[in-house]
Amino acid sequence: MVFLAPYTQVVEELKVKLRGMRSQYEIESSHSPIELVTGRVKPVSSILDKARRKNIPHDQIEEEMQDIAGVRVVCQFVDDIYSIASMLRARHDFDILEEKDYIKNKKNSGYRSYHVIVRYPVATIHGEKHVIAEIQIRTLAMNFWATNEHSLNYKYAGQIPENIQTRLKRAAEAAFRLDEEMAKIKDEVQEAQWIFHQYKSNANKKGGHA
Amino acid sequence: MVFLAPYTQVVEELKVKLRGMRSQYEIESSHSPIELVTGRVKPVSSILDKARRKNIPHDQIEEEMQDIAGVRVVCQFVDDIYSIASMLRARHDFDILEEKDYIKNKKNSGYRSYHVIVRYPVATIHGEKHVIAEIQIRTLAMNFWATNEHSLNYKYAGQIPENIQTRLKRAAEAAFRLDEEMAKIKDEVQEAQWIFHQYKSNANKKGGHA
Amino acid sequence: MVFLAPYTQVVEELKVKLRGMRSQYEIESSHSPIELVTGRVKPVSSILDKARRKNIPHDQIEEEMQDIAGVRVVCQFVDDIYSIASMLRARHDFDILEEKDYIKNKKNSGYRSYHVIVRYPVATIHGEKHVIAEIQIRTLAMNFWATNEHSLNYKYAGQIPENIQTRLKRAAEAAFRLDEEMAKIKDEVQEAQWIFHQYKSNANKKGGHA
Amino acid sequence: MVFLAPYTQVVEELKVKLRGMRSQYEIESSHSPIELVTGRVKPVSSILDKARRKNIPHDQIEEEMQDIAGVRVVCQFVDDIYSIASMLRARHDFDILEEKDYIKNKKNSGYRSYHVIVRYPVATIHGEKHVIAEIQIRTLAMNFWATNEHSLNYKYAGQIPENIQTRLKRAAEAAFRLDEEMAKIKDEVQEAQWIFHQYKSNANKKGGHA
Repeated sequence: MVFLAPYTQVVEELKVKLRGMRSQYEIESSHSPIELVTGRVKPVSSILDKARRKNIPHDQIEEEMQDIAGVRVVCQFVDDIYSIASMLRARHDFDILEEKDYIKNKKNSGYRSYHVIVRYPVATIHGEKHVIAEIQIRTLAMNFWATNEHSLNYKYAGQIPENIQTRLKRAAEAAFRLDEEMAKIKDEVQEAQWIFHQYKSNANKKGGHA
Repeated sequence: MVFLAPYTQVVEELKVKLRGMRSQYEIESSHSPIELVTGRVKPVSSILDKARRKNIPHDQIEEEMQDIAGVRVVCQFVDDIYSIASMLRARHDFDILEEKDYIKNKKNSGYRSYHVIVRYPVATIHGEKHVIAEIQIRTLAMNFWATNEHSLNYKYAGQIPENIQTRLKRAAEAAFRLDEEMAKIKDEVQEAQWIFHQYKSNANKKGGHA
Repeated sequence: MVFLAPYTQVVEELKVKLRGMRSQYEIESSHSPIELVTGRVKPVSSILDKARRKNIPHDQIEEEMQDIAGVRVVCQFVDDIYSIASMLRARHDFDILEEKDYIKNKKNSGYRSYHVIVRYPVATIHGEKHVIAEIQIRTLAMNFWATNEHSLNYKYAGQIPENIQTRLKRAAEAAFRLDEEMAKIKDEVQEAQWIFHQYKSNANKKGGHA
Repeated sequence: MVFLAPYTQVVEELKVKLRGMRSQYEIESSHSPIELVTGRVKPVSSILDKARRKNIPHDQIEEEMQDIAGVRVVCQFVDDIYSIASMLRARHDFDILEEKDYIKNKKNSGYRSYHVIVRYPVATIHGEKHVIAEIQIRTLAMNFWATNEHSLNYKYAGQIPENIQTRLKRAAEAAFRLDEEMAKIKDEVQEAQWIFHQYKSNANKKGGHA
């Protein structure tokens, strides 16, 4: 599809850029806030469905539909999400239009995720074009839940029966508790590392072996 | 590393083969039991560490250490794991040496996963070689938990303090409950689809619109 | 396209396998006969065009059309082509149905290349399937010429005007002379290396430094 | 290597960007001036060898050695090279420092190629960094010759014996003649296409079938 070519290009470039950040952390052997990067361009049929559902005229799709180009960054801890968001803010190769924090303000369905909407200048064979793309940042637990909700939504055509919605919410709460428990462990890990470094530098002052 | 070259090749081939299965499901628009396929070759330093820890003589590493070549298949539902395992059994391009069901018999730490150990014939520039590889099959929830446990294990050099172990086990139980709730939803989804199909075929018999 | 899925899979597997051979040569720092590996599945429109042109009934396309799955191996020297062909013969993961030596017997158009037709067992989600694939082996010069001829053929819909055909043949002869001159240099290179090794081993016998 | 990480990243980004241009041409079914894009980071040992040979102090390597990050664009016709060079000039995501036309001014060895030296701003985990990279643009014939010369240079450690040098030059001239003949065919192809389009639009004006 000619119309989607710049979106495909933006997804490819963002994937290479974000995976590159993960590689750089790995080369420097430090904890990478980025665990996994995936991307996709919304299929034409889904674009048209959404335009109909949300009453978006065809000539406003490019401006109004922000998730045609979508990149997903998955991480281990909730704190990592905010590190990645600041890394994105520090870049100069695209502008951030909007940030949506569905972690502090989770959706009714139970959906949690951090969305960064960017305007990305991409060189095409007809000159530069500015394309809107959505970067979703999530923990593994949020992603697990969202993937399941997404396939149920697809199967029920957006009308998930109430009793299943209730179960999904319970699952979302369990996923949320997982993230919370993991966050506490992260603190302990960092405290443990801090203590260890303290010990080493004290030992050095006293002339001991490190 | 010359020694690891056949392992690298096996990981590449298994990744292409398992991702190909996922693509085939997608082309046929049916539910793919495979969500994600990743792979890695164990770094030399980890191989030597493990050989020391487990008292494996260097000339028996190839036979005794089964996870030098490792491929991971992640799926949505627990049932998918067993579908993938039978798909592996139906293939003719490698032999299955052993299957370890850490789901029915979960490890003390809380670890759950299904491991398939295969002997894979790989063509090298010096002729055919049989290489042992480990295929780990897990749900997203199991994978989420295992990734976290792995990084804690790395940070604590295998000696996770007891209070953190306790928390990890609680997290493992929460992940387990998630999988169970999801499994129940899966059944409802399938029931719903079955009812829907019944309705359509009845409607057709009566001459109605489907 | 459901029909083409197994062909796509075979192309992906052959690419990973042949690129793996190149990597193995590089890891061992020896001359790789393989310079480049590419692959493609014939587009549906070209399959139907060719079936019409060659009077192939649709239910015999799978057996009669041998280049639906096509992999190309490009190398530096003419001798490399025959090394690659024997490497293919030594593998156990597919059967060779036919070899066509358009180097010793070049086509009227000037086309030179070595074709190996294989029957490749590929695991699909519906069980094992045997797929026919064509592996083309060529020098860089042959590939250069063939790429140009292919695009002219495409532009002239198979009916290249005679005066251009004449030019193409002259170009083919020039490409052929290039390969011949390079072949002579290859011999000198190998002789030089042999002399150098002789010198080194003699020096060692005499106790000198190598 | 921590030092090379930004270079690796630049090579990955340039490859994705230039391959993206090729895909865009393919989607629009027009002739793509880009046939093939490859890239590599110079190995550390080669960087140190070259620094020694060219007397480059280690703290000036980043500024003085322009081919640590190298990307190669291969095309069919000589004219395509200049189209690609203008496409590069039209981009806003890097600055062009220098262009070296070794086609109009071929090297003594017979080497022909078009080099574009760029300063590329790359986002690293420590902030933005400007990295110098070399983009080599060549026809398939130039690339064929250069690949062969490169491997001979490597084998003779830069000191190719005079009689082989003479042969290489003869090969270079043959490659040059190939490009010239192909260029003439290109003109005819374009003329043919122009005539065809003329005919079609005339036919349309007269109400005939196109």
